[in-house]
Amino acid sequence: MAEAVDTLILHAHLFTMPRDGVGYIPDGAVAVRGDRIVDEGSTNTLLLRYDAATIIDASEHALLPGLIDAHMHTPWAVVRGVAQDISHWMQRGLAPYARHLAREAALAGSRLNVLEALSTGTTTMGDYAHPIEGWAEIFAEFGVRAVLTPTINALPPGKMAGWGIGELYQLDEAVADRAIRDALDFARDWHGAEAGRISIMLGPQAADMLSRDQLLHVKRLAAAEGLMIHMHVAQGEREIDQMVKRYGKRTPAFLEQIGYLDDQLLAVHLTEATEEEAAEIAFSGARMVLCSGSIGLIDGIVPPAYAFRSNGGLVALGSDQAAGNNANNMFGEMKLTALFNKIRYRDPTIMPAWTVLRMATIEGARAIGLGDQIGSIEVGKQADLILVDLRAPNLTPILNSPIRNIVPNLVYAATGKKSTLSWWLGVCCCRTGVC
Amino acid sequence: MAEAVDTLILHAHLFTMPRDGVGYIPDGAVAVRGDRIVDEGSTNTLLLRYDAATIIDASEHALLPGLIDAHMHTPWAVVRGVAQDISHWMQRGLAPYARHLAREAALAGSRLNVLEALSTGTTTMGDYAHPIEGWAEIFAEFGVRAVLTPTINALPPGKMAGWGIGELYQLDEAVADRAIRDALDFARDWHGAEAGRISIMLGPQAADMLSRDQLLHVKRLAAAEGLMIHMHVAQGEREIDQMVKRYGKRTPAFLEQIGYLDDQLLAVHLTEATEEEAAEIAFSGARMVLCSGSIGLIDGIVPPAYAFRSNGGLVALGSDQAAGNNANNMFGEMKLTALFNKIRYRDPTIMPAWTVLRMATIEGARAIGLGDQIGSIEVGKQADLILVDLRAPNLTPILNSPIRNIVPNLVYAATGKKSTLSWWLGVCCCRTGVC
Repeated sequence: MAEAVDTLILHAHLFTMPRDGVGYIPDGAVAVRGDRIVDEGSTNTLLLRYDAATIIDASEHALLPGLIDAHMHTPWAVVRGVAQDISHWMQRGLAPYARHLAREAALAGSRLNVLEALSTGTTTMGDYAHPIEGWAEIFAEFGVRAVLTPTINALPPGKMAGWGIGELYQLDEAVADRAIRDALDFARDWHGAEAGRISIMLGPQAADMLSRDQLLHVKRLAAAEGLMIHMHVAQGEREIDQMVKRYGKRTPAFLEQIGYLDDQLLAVHLTEATEEEAAEIAFSGARMVLCSGSIGLIDGIVPPAYAFRSNGGLVALGSDQAAGNNANNMFGEMKLTALFNKIRYRDPTIMPAWTVLRMATIEGARAIGLGDQIGSIEVGKQADLILVDLRAPNLTPILNSPIRNIVPNLVYAATGKKSTLSWWLGVCCCRTGVC
Repeated sequence: MAEAVDTLILHAHLFTMPRDGVGYIPDGAVAVRGDRIVDEGSTNTLLLRYDAATIIDASEHALLPGLIDAHMHTPWAVVRGVAQDISHWMQRGLAPYARHLAREAALAGSRLNVLEALSTGTTTMGDYAHPIEGWAEIFAEFGVRAVLTPTINALPPGKMAGWGIGELYQLDEAVADRAIRDALDFARDWHGAEAGRISIMLGPQAADMLSRDQLLHVKRLAAAEGLMIHMHVAQGEREIDQMVKRYGKRTPAFLEQIGYLDDQLLAVHLTEATEEEAAEIAFSGARMVLCSGSIGLIDGIVPPAYAFRSNGGLVALGSDQAAGNNANNMFGEMKLTALFNKIRYRDPTIMPAWTVLRMATIEGARAIGLGDQIGSIEVGKQADLILVDLRAPNLTPILNSPIRNIVPNLVYAATGKKSTLSWWLGVCCCRTGVC
């Protein structure tokens, strides 16, 4: 007797992304009940086991876990593309706008960015911003999965990165105190909200933007509340310069000294980290977010994510902000990540397509602490699923025997535009107007 | 009294790409008669001057010259994505398929690739392939502009790059003699065909794949027939190794010695060229095609195009082949080109967006010898035009005063998918089913 489920997706090129591969099933199927994956396997097997209210024929489509963008700053989408191709981007490119970003503009940016990400296959968004009223509500309303990090810094309002280049920032502890209180309130309101679709991290913006005492205070609070810490680490010459002037140490050594390097830390960028520093951070259990497009465009740098991952570290991908990277598209980030690392090491075998697909799915999920809920297509996990139409000219032909070309084409040829991405389920499908 | 034209495109964000900038006109218009641009300027001015049978409202669209992909190998689209992330790609990745590519498969690949390029804004395609029957007809039928280069080499059939790694190729002069005759016949049939939309170059495949005498023979024929020479130059360690074993010289020095370096040469890749070699080639007047995605993926290398261009050389962009680069999308190539070069020099100011947009349009046109016909929107030029819908989430917002963000967004955020690219005119519109 067949069991009842809500949805059966049949005949897909299914990529389940299990423990250490891509888990390809040629004529694959997934059964969904509510927002959960009930079963996955071959179409023939699942057809025998289940009766479904809705049956979706996914022939000539790739069926994947929704992509994870672990680091965004969605409000900046309103100033997409205003400050490219310059040096000292943060001070010269971003700060002049930062001073004048009204609440309505910030919310419009977040809406725009969520729409862009969702329409290019991203179902989990790690956003980092000032927790203005209405921000979290946008993610709730769109129905996406979100990991929100309210920014904590001790920079006097309007001064964020607005000092002269090379000048030591003046920190105002009262500003940080207020930001810490706001972040805690925000976390208590939103952590676990929307049936668990929204979770919260604490976000000391960077080691140079808070005092040592306040960094330690945030660390204790994060431990007490069971929250991860999401922090920019070694994100530019500017930061390293501040740290050396302030403490006589580069950021990684400073963080090691104050006890910040452990598996509670999600370290973003590592732009200026050496391979040795990256390895040390990886050994500590801390996780990394690699923002290839953003750091390539802003700094002309390929961060040491390959070294981080080779030393056992978990690496997620992030698109950062549209004022620096212009696009928030994980298909683009996957291609850039693979190619940038081949170039860094002058070796085409580095970071093959399947590894970056894992970074955008299961490894990204583990890096942000959601490895038991999303990132792979396994029984009991959330049905955050995307379908990619492989009949598009740039994904044709589909070959799966004796040679498979689907994963390389998803990473190197797909653009993730709505026309290619037919629809998605579970977390998004029911709540958004987009699908 | 208003003059009659066929088409007026009004209210566009117009980029005319004139002599040395992007030629932005905010509320811009273009008048077209037949396949020619009759006028360009502000909407108000053109509305007073012309009556048009068709009026197109291009509000919130960018209007640009059609993009130029100067180097493709379209037949290989049938094996898209089969051999990525490996070393010795040509011998291990491509050669096993090269031996078995049937005529029907090659033609299917060409059709697929033309469709892909056309649907991502490329209106001029520089294709390099064996001149099998039916190849040129595909470009004629689609109605695109094409620069076709029939391959000339002295490699025994089935042996193309099929030797052991490090082994000297055996050259068979009879094979090259036949290829030269075929290429000349092809050039006589097709150069200037389809109202000038198709032109031909001669294609000695690479300095290591023909004897010195036959290279010189091709050079004399090209001069006599008034055709450019389209050749892979310093395209990998493999080639340099062959040249040093054969002549005791690296490719650029060898080409200089035999008189190949002049403005008749379109040199592709320069993967292994030093900055000094690139500068020497640029000084000679020879032109370059940079295939960023392909060389990044196959070799993990950023060729010295920045040095070439800085020394006065003309650089076009190319997508190469889908068996190596997976995608043939000039929007992707523009972003990769800018970012790869920023990374090569660790300098975000290198290759700003507007320069790569010029490489994909007017500079590319000049590089392939068509600078007087295409690549910019100027009176008398061909109406090879594309419109990009700027209302897509990834191209929103549109800012043009006091700061302009359209060009950075076209280069860093646009993906070129059909949904974004509404339609195009002149060369393509009338003859294809795609628009």
